[in-house]
Amino acid sequence: MPRGYSFGRAEEATHPDSVRATLSEFLSTLIFVFAGEGSVLAIDKMYKDTALGASSLVVIALAHTLALFAAVASSMNVSGGHINPAVTFGALVGGRVSLIRAIYYWIAQLLGAVVASLLLRLATDGMRPVGFSVAAGVGGWNALLMEIVMTFGLVYTVYATAIDPKRGSLGTIAPLAIAFIVGANVLVGGPFEGASMNPARAFGPALVGWRWKNHWIYWLGPFVGAAVAGVVYEFGVIQAEIPHHTHHQPLAPEDY
Amino acid sequence: MPRGYSFGRAEEATHPDSVRATLSEFLSTLIFVFAGEGSVLAIDKMYKDTALGASSLVVIALAHTLALFAAVASSMNVSGGHINPAVTFGALVGGRVSLIRAIYYWIAQLLGAVVASLLLRLATDGMRPVGFSVAAGVGGWNALLMEIVMTFGLVYTVYATAIDPKRGSLGTIAPLAIAFIVGANVLVGGPFEGASMNPARAFGPALVGWRWKNHWIYWLGPFVGAAVAGVVYEFGVIQAEIPHHTHHQPLAPEDY
Amino acid sequence: MPRGYSFGRAEEATHPDSVRATLSEFLSTLIFVFAGEGSVLAIDKMYKDTALGASSLVVIALAHTLALFAAVASSMNVSGGHINPAVTFGALVGGRVSLIRAIYYWIAQLLGAVVASLLLRLATDGMRPVGFSVAAGVGGWNALLMEIVMTFGLVYTVYATAIDPKRGSLGTIAPLAIAFIVGANVLVGGPFEGASMNPARAFGPALVGWRWKNHWIYWLGPFVGAAVAGVVYEFGVIQAEIPHHTHHQPLAPEDY
Amino acid sequence: MPRGYSFGRAEEATHPDSVRATLSEFLSTLIFVFAGEGSVLAIDKMYKDTALGASSLVVIALAHTLALFAAVASSMNVSGGHINPAVTFGALVGGRVSLIRAIYYWIAQLLGAVVASLLLRLATDGMRPVGFSVAAGVGGWNALLMEIVMTFGLVYTVYATAIDPKRGSLGTIAPLAIAFIVGANVLVGGPFEGASMNPARAFGPALVGWRWKNHWIYWLGPFVGAAVAGVVYEFGVIQAEIPHHTHHQPLAPEDY
Repeated sequence: MPRGYSFGRAEEATHPDSVRATLSEFLSTLIFVFAGEGSVLAIDKMYKDTALGASSLVVIALAHTLALFAAVASSMNVSGGHINPAVTFGALVGGRVSLIRAIYYWIAQLLGAVVASLLLRLATDGMRPVGFSVAAGVGGWNALLMEIVMTFGLVYTVYATAIDPKRGSLGTIAPLAIAFIVGANVLVGGPFEGASMNPARAFGPALVGWRWKNHWIYWLGPFVGAAVAGVVYEFGVIQAEIPHHTHHQPLAPEDY
Repeated sequence: MPRGYSFGRAEEATHPDSVRATLSEFLSTLIFVFAGEGSVLAIDKMYKDTALGASSLVVIALAHTLALFAAVASSMNVSGGHINPAVTFGALVGGRVSLIRAIYYWIAQLLGAVVASLLLRLATDGMRPVGFSVAAGVGGWNALLMEIVMTFGLVYTVYATAIDPKRGSLGTIAPLAIAFIVGANVLVGGPFEGASMNPARAFGPALVGWRWKNHWIYWLGPFVGAAVAGVVYEFGVIQAEIPHHTHHQPLAPEDY
Repeated sequence: MPRGYSFGRAEEATHPDSVRATLSEFLSTLIFVFAGEGSVLAIDKMYKDTALGASSLVVIALAHTLALFAAVASSMNVSGGHINPAVTFGALVGGRVSLIRAIYYWIAQLLGAVVASLLLRLATDGMRPVGFSVAAGVGGWNALLMEIVMTFGLVYTVYATAIDPKRGSLGTIAPLAIAFIVGANVLVGGPFEGASMNPARAFGPALVGWRWKNHWIYWLGPFVGAAVAGVVYEFGVIQAEIPHHTHHQPLAPEDY
Repeated sequence: MPRGYSFGRAEEATHPDSVRATLSEFLSTLIFVFAGEGSVLAIDKMYKDTALGASSLVVIALAHTLALFAAVASSMNVSGGHINPAVTFGALVGGRVSLIRAIYYWIAQLLGAVVASLLLRLATDGMRPVGFSVAAGVGGWNALLMEIVMTFGLVYTVYATAIDPKRGSLGTIAPLAIAFIVGANVLVGGPFEGASMNPARAFGPALVGWRWKNHWIYWLGPFVGAAVAGVVYEFGVIQAEIPHHTHHQPLAPEDY
């Protein structure tokens, strides 16, 4: 039975585990955003002002997939491997993280993304971070819906593989599932609206590159998608089980 | 010893595990088809009406591989991670799923694919889903054979890594093996006939994009390939063991 | 302590485990060669007679990587997951497989590759399999050396992750390591001599496409590389341990 | 509690485990550098003197990712899977390896990279290894910073997934996390300064191809990044735990 919402205990803020977890979120988000946004700048370095092509899309999707896997794996045992304010929000909605911890994580994630964007600017001799924008011919509401659906897929995967108490040995491959669904969605949403699914990933480059057009989409979309996934999984899948079945083992393929 | 065919128990339809498993198949198929068909639309967005090239093929194959892994991993412990009516049919043929459960899964999978296609249409401001078609210079029977062989490979992999009672620790990497064989086959069949191996993946975009030409191939091929794989693995590999050897451990490389 | 060489026990040939293992090698090799050679034909279908480019190289390398993973994973617990006469030869040289079993595997692997090539020819309406050839400007001995070094890397990886009795939990990721080193090497050797590392992978398309030029390279190179790897790992790494240390646990990073 | 720095025990140099570990580092580095540098020569073979494009960048990043995974997996249980003098330096800074063992590893890694480069030169009929260089428009200090940040990400990942005593089942996916962060970073740093993160990977081709321009960057950057990661993880994450909490289990997502 999941515990109810916790709005923070007085001692949590200075608890050493909170400090370590927050540091872990900060550094892992830094590593992820450095690679993700860095791959966009790498494309920029090779093809100045050329329209996105399939090979460039593969570069960007792979960079996000590979780096997110390492970032989630590196922080999974310390902080739960969120690396994403929307994932933290999804966990909050399902009652899987306290509000005080969520606030720590959000600050750490945003800070990590900003530092990563600054380091990129220094390392590339001043290239302006690109971040996300909505492509020509795509409406703001279209882009919003795409962010919602894609982040739903991401947070649903997080719940099923990393949070579900019955996940069992799936926990081992959770970072892979999380990284892979982000990579797949970048290949879908990339040419339409960039495919962020992560407000920190969008915020760092927006701040350092000072580009705010349609920025709200990259906050509202992920938060709505994450909330829906949190509610559906927590109350539709986990808690839908009938109490006297709690001794029941996860259904393995050979059991039916 | 596998149990015989089960044609459904009266109470199964309302059993909470059936409901959760069906919901899981619906949502995981939705996530998979959104990414798979979405990547085809992403190519369309970048290159209007251009012939498929190697980079675009990589985009499509990666999107299917990455998303299918997340979808199978997310539903493995709840529903067995089918995400595909042909996989469910292969499990039915081998006696690994009851008919009533198979029917629930089929409805959930088709519905998930249709909803994913509708969401894509909304999020792309009306782009018409593409689905599958047979390329110029390829006959219908060639395409059918290709779907049969590719789906055989997929369902054989499902049996060996996710269903075989002696799979042992292979179960951990089953979602990866399943996703990878689909990705490999997309790289083969893509330029010839699209490479579906999954009637739900074909049906959703066909319905929402209203394209039915050669649609039968994407049902008949996968079902035949899945049935052959189910029979070969269930009766050729699993049940070929001699009863008094049932205490025998899976053959590890150092054992021979 | 590894057992010495075994040149076959009378009853092994009809032992049910041998039959299942041989069937498994046949089907897994079929699935692997269908995808590997099939991806080469897919490139051919898209770009008739064009020189190999980087995107096409990625298609071919990914198809081999993804399919080999599924094929090895599917047969790991049944046959040891060789899917390659050179791997079987490397295991034979190190005393890890009996000669009679090796002969069964070789026949199954070659047969699987031939059937896959025939199915490809049928499914593509008669396209002639391409197989491997040495590029212009590359000498036969250069190509031979490349096959030797690449197959050494492959069989060394097989020994370290799938055969070494002290591999521990590495066994879980053995199919991934095996598939990945093949994929990496395809990206290296592809433009020079195709990068086979597997006589069955070369033989099936050579027979069905009737192309035998430099075919010897794709047998001699892999067998030499595999034999060197088998000797180096078996006698340099496994048996170099001092007997009274056999109770010692594998060296974990924190132990030194 | 981590043990303090060890500056070598007299008997370690001839300890059989040291010999096996050193051999393992030599061979795994050889396999990794052969594929990594080999993929650069493969691009050279296909496109003589053409500027790096996105598809070529994918080829190079994939070759490094796939080969590093196999190399790390193959040596993880024997030597700890460093394959990189900077990783060994990071482990030394955190007190996780003795100085004498570090020296053995460094020699083995450099030797493996040199032999790999020589084998490539022979197998390609004399092509001159390319190694790393700083792109036009990128300053030496920019390149240095990029190497520092990227290697920080790599060694942080090594600590979190392969060294942290509380890593638990993450150890299984450590080779994947390590290989993936390198692959992601190649996609970022490739067009700017090649993205080495590994002095052995840079040294072998530099020696055999005799190209030393800016070579210092590929030693100083990785060593600084590795040292920072070692200090941050060892003293900020591992030792930041309060002693009376040592009985505490790693924080799982459902625990907070």
